Amino acid sequence: MESTRASGSDQPLDATVAVIDLPVRFAETDAMGIVHHSNYLVWFEAGRIAWMAAAGMPYSEIAAGGHHFAVTSVNVAYRTPARFGESVRVATRLTRLRSREVAFAYEVRRAGDDAFLASGVSEHICVDLQGRTAKIPDEVMAQLRQGTVAPANGA
Amino acid sequence: MESTRASGSDQPLDATVAVIDLPVRFAETDAMGIVHHSNYLVWFEAGRIAWMAAAGMPYSEIAAGGHHFAVTSVNVAYRTPARFGESVRVATRLTRLRSREVAFAYEVRRAGDDAFLASGVSEHICVDLQGRTAKIPDEVMAQLRQGTVAPANGA
Amino acid sequence: MESTRASGSDQPLDATVAVIDLPVRFAETDAMGIVHHSNYLVWFEAGRIAWMAAAGMPYSEIAAGGHHFAVTSVNVAYRTPARFGESVRVATRLTRLRSREVAFAYEVRRAGDDAFLASGVSEHICVDLQGRTAKIPDEVMAQLRQGTVAPANGA
Amino acid sequence: MESTRASGSDQPLDATVAVIDLPVRFAETDAMGIVHHSNYLVWFEAGRIAWMAAAGMPYSEIAAGGHHFAVTSVNVAYRTPARFGESVRVATRLTRLRSREVAFAYEVRRAGDDAFLASGVSEHICVDLQGRTAKIPDEVMAQLRQGTVAPANGA
Repeated sequence: MESTRASGSDQPLDATVAVIDLPVRFAETDAMGIVHHSNYLVWFEAGRIAWMAAAGMPYSEIAAGGHHFAVTSVNVAYRTPARFGESVRVATRLTRLRSREVAFAYEVRRAGDDAFLASGVSEHICVDLQGRTAKIPDEVMAQLRQGTVAPANGA
Repeated sequence: MESTRASGSDQPLDATVAVIDLPVRFAETDAMGIVHHSNYLVWFEAGRIAWMAAAGMPYSEIAAGGHHFAVTSVNVAYRTPARFGESVRVATRLTRLRSREVAFAYEVRRAGDDAFLASGVSEHICVDLQGRTAKIPDEVMAQLRQGTVAPANGA
Repeated sequence: MESTRASGSDQPLDATVAVIDLPVRFAETDAMGIVHHSNYLVWFEAGRIAWMAAAGMPYSEIAAGGHHFAVTSVNVAYRTPARFGESVRVATRLTRLRSREVAFAYEVRRAGDDAFLASGVSEHICVDLQGRTAKIPDEVMAQLRQGTVAPANGA
Repeated sequence: MESTRASGSDQPLDATVAVIDLPVRFAETDAMGIVHHSNYLVWFEAGRIAWMAAAGMPYSEIAAGGHHFAVTSVNVAYRTPARFGESVRVATRLTRLRSREVAFAYEVRRAGDDAFLASGVSEHICVDLQGRTAKIPDEVMAQLRQGTVAPANGA
C-alpha cells in the first residue's frame, strides 16, 4: 500500500496504523483551561479519515459514491487532559470489518513526550444517502481489507 | 403574524424583532474563561432562524424546498465577554430583503442585567441545491416581507 | 427541592430527572444532513448542568468555588439521527455519587414524537483548580444527594 | 527570524506571512454540504497562532505570561465554499501593532488549485488575566515587531 502523510504527521502512515499529529486549537479549550472532551470525537474522526486515506480509500470518495459510515457508538476513556500549546498524536486502527459494519480503535498521546492522554473506540454502519443500512461497496471493502494487512516490505 | 416563542425566550417574538435567550454552554467557553468568539456566529444563526420561524417561514422549510441562504459576509463587534453561568439574549432584525439577498443585524446582551455584549451583521444570498445563486422563492419572499411589518395590533 | 425550568424545557424539572429541550442548531449538522455525533456530548453536558441547577447546585457555583467535575469517560449509543428543524429532549439522571466521583446517564429523544435517538453515560472525578483529584465539597455533596431524592410531594 | 513549519504546511513560513494548510474536518461541514461559516474564525485563529509562532512568540507563552489578545472585532467575506476532502491554505499577516492593539488579515484559498475561498480581518486588544486592557509586554512587542520585518536573506 502506498505510504502517505497525514496532515502534520511526523511519521509516515503504515498499512495498519494511521498516525496524525494535531496541534491543539485554542477554540478546542474550555474554561477549565484544557481541551473540551467533545473534541476527542472530532480527533478520532480525523484519525479514521487518515486511516482510510492511507488504505487508499479516501472517505470523501466513499461519500461521493453515496455511502457513509454512520456512527452507532463511541466510547472514550480520558486519562490526562490536553492543553493549548501541545500537539496530540492520534493512532488509529481498524478493529472490525464486516459486510455492513466497521469499528476503529484510537489512542491519543501528547506529541511532545508521548504521554498517554486518552483512548477510545467507535462503531459504524454503512448507510446509503437515504440513511438506510447498506452493504459496504465491494471496491471500498477491498481497499479497507488491504489496509488491515501490513505490506510485505513493512513500509 | 402569529406570535411564537423561541427556545428559552422570556418574551414572545414580535413581527420585527426575534429575541431568544441562550444559556451559555460550558463547551462554548475557552481557556480565557470566556465564550470563544466563534460561537457568536452560531448564536446569530440561531437568531435569524428564530426570526424566520416567527415570520412564518421556518428555515427548515426553506431548506426542504431546496434553497439555502448562504452566508456571504459576517461582521462582529465584541464589547464585553459572555461567561458560563450567564444566558445571552440575541435580538435579530431583517435589515435587507432583495430578490436574491437578505441581511440581518444582531444585538447580543446578557439576559440577567441587559449588559451589551456584542453586535453584528450577516449578509446572505439565496442559493439552490447546486449552490447557484437563485431568486428567493415567491412564497418565502412573501413571508419574509410580512415579517418586516409590525402587526396592526402590535402583538 | 425547588422545581426549576431548564432553558427551552416544556416541563418542570423534578428532583430526580432533569429534562431540557434543545432546538437542533444548523451549525450542529454535518454533510450527512444529520447532527454530527460529537454534539451529543455537548447536549449531555447541558443536561447534567440542568440537573445540577435543578438540584440547587449550579455548576457555575461549583466552578466558582474552585472545583470541576472532570470527565473521565463517556459512552454514547446512537440509534436514530437528529436533524435540523427538530428539537431534542435530553433526560438526565445522576447514577453515582461518591466522595470524589459522580456519574450521569442520559436519554435523548425527539421532542416532537418522543422517538428515541440516543443514550449515554458519563463518569467524572472532582478536581481542584490544579487539576488534582479532590473530595467533593460537603455543601456540594449535600445538594447533589438531595437531588437524588424525589420530594415527598412528588413535585 | 527562524523559519518554522506550521502543521501540515507545504511551505516554510516567512517573516511576514504565515501559511498553514488545514484539511477540512468532516465535523466542520454542515447540512448544506459545505464548511459551516463559523469555522473560518477558528482557521483564522490557527493562522495568527502560526504567525506568532513563526515570529518567535508562541501564543501559549503569551498566555502563560498572563496576557491574551482578546478579539474586539472580526470581518469575514465568503466567496467560494470549502468542502470535505479539500485542504484550505490560510495566509496570515499582521496589519497593525500598537502598544495595546494588534490586527491580522487572512486569506483562505483551496490548497489544491489555489482558488480564493474567503478573506477576513480580526482586531485584538491585549488584556491581563482579569480581562483588563493592558500594554503588550515589551518582549512580546519586540518579537511581534521583528515578525513584521522580512529578514535580509529573504528566507
